[in-house]
Amino acid sequence: MDFSSRYLEKAVEEIGGLPGIGKKTALRLALYLLRSETMVTSKLAASLVDLHDKVKRCTSCGNLSDVEQCHICTNPSRDKSIICVVEDIRDVMAIENTGQYKGIYHVLGGLVSPMDGVGPNDLNIKSLVDKAALGEIKEVILALSTTMEGETTAFYIFKKLKDFELPLSAIARGIAVGDQLEYADELTLARSIKNRLPYETSINQNRS
Amino acid sequence: MDFSSRYLEKAVEEIGGLPGIGKKTALRLALYLLRSETMVTSKLAASLVDLHDKVKRCTSCGNLSDVEQCHICTNPSRDKSIICVVEDIRDVMAIENTGQYKGIYHVLGGLVSPMDGVGPNDLNIKSLVDKAALGEIKEVILALSTTMEGETTAFYIFKKLKDFELPLSAIARGIAVGDQLEYADELTLARSIKNRLPYETSINQNRS
Repeated sequence: MDFSSRYLEKAVEEIGGLPGIGKKTALRLALYLLRSETMVTSKLAASLVDLHDKVKRCTSCGNLSDVEQCHICTNPSRDKSIICVVEDIRDVMAIENTGQYKGIYHVLGGLVSPMDGVGPNDLNIKSLVDKAALGEIKEVILALSTTMEGETTAFYIFKKLKDFELPLSAIARGIAVGDQLEYADELTLARSIKNRLPYETSINQNRS
Repeated sequence: MDFSSRYLEKAVEEIGGLPGIGKKTALRLALYLLRSETMVTSKLAASLVDLHDKVKRCTSCGNLSDVEQCHICTNPSRDKSIICVVEDIRDVMAIENTGQYKGIYHVLGGLVSPMDGVGPNDLNIKSLVDKAALGEIKEVILALSTTMEGETTAFYIFKKLKDFELPLSAIARGIAVGDQLEYADELTLARSIKNRLPYETSINQNRS
């Protein structure tokens, strides 16, 4: 493409570097920003800088937070003895939206995926095992996507936690196998949390 | 949505305010930026700020430029006596990509659209008439979209330039009526510039 402005070209290049945004969309967005008030662009730019400077990970569960511990971990009405293990903070948002869950979370920050070079040590799993070792946990719920990566990760956590003889459950397979958790509708997701099964029952059903 | 970080919520809100970007896409992009290196986000933010601070309009043709006159207007090998009138700088890019046009441009910055409250006075039309009055122009080519707004704008310019008895042409209707110029393929666009017709022939064909 022939750009008459080097700065426009740079902006299109940067916007087009975002996942799922092509060159034409990037140009459309850049021209939109050029046409709009300076405030629109400066507020957008400032919010992006703040993302990196001010958003931290909760030291307890790995959820995103502006302070050291997230608002779920510090909420006195949440049951700290039930831990729901999720891949990503989008899953926390999705489960919070159902309004059905009163325990706390543990955000792994990804799933075991040999294809993408992600091993168990790249994930926030050790601190979950440490929490289990303290003996204050009554149940661990695995709320992972029903993909191969999700199943692999669940099985790894199952092996790691086996010795603590904790009730380990998996959310009910109301979600179609192969689907990603974040796109499930709220009703299905709420039911799948209510109807959770002991992990061993869950894997036996997969086999039969 | 329940956000555990106020700054994440703000970023999602700002990104989601861009045209064609929904809430889920905004969240996906914000989380992508959070995961990536600080440099990725700061370069993106800086490029957006530069857009407003450094990109100007060419004082001669209205094209975007980093300096007072754009690289097309200042190029000595371009024929300054042929002016191609376009809606938008994306159209300049599209025509430049064909490599078939050696004149200069005049960017209107929009089309006459009573529905959107855009009148001829909101567009960069007066300076085109001023240029025509100087008597140094051999031809004006109307390269506007074949939509109702494009036809209205073309007719307005035709009336304004009529007294100067300039050859006024419209690009050939190789582009399907109702289509936007920026999505045309290069070959069709190049041909439509080569096969341009006198404007009066062009409107007569529309009527018959």
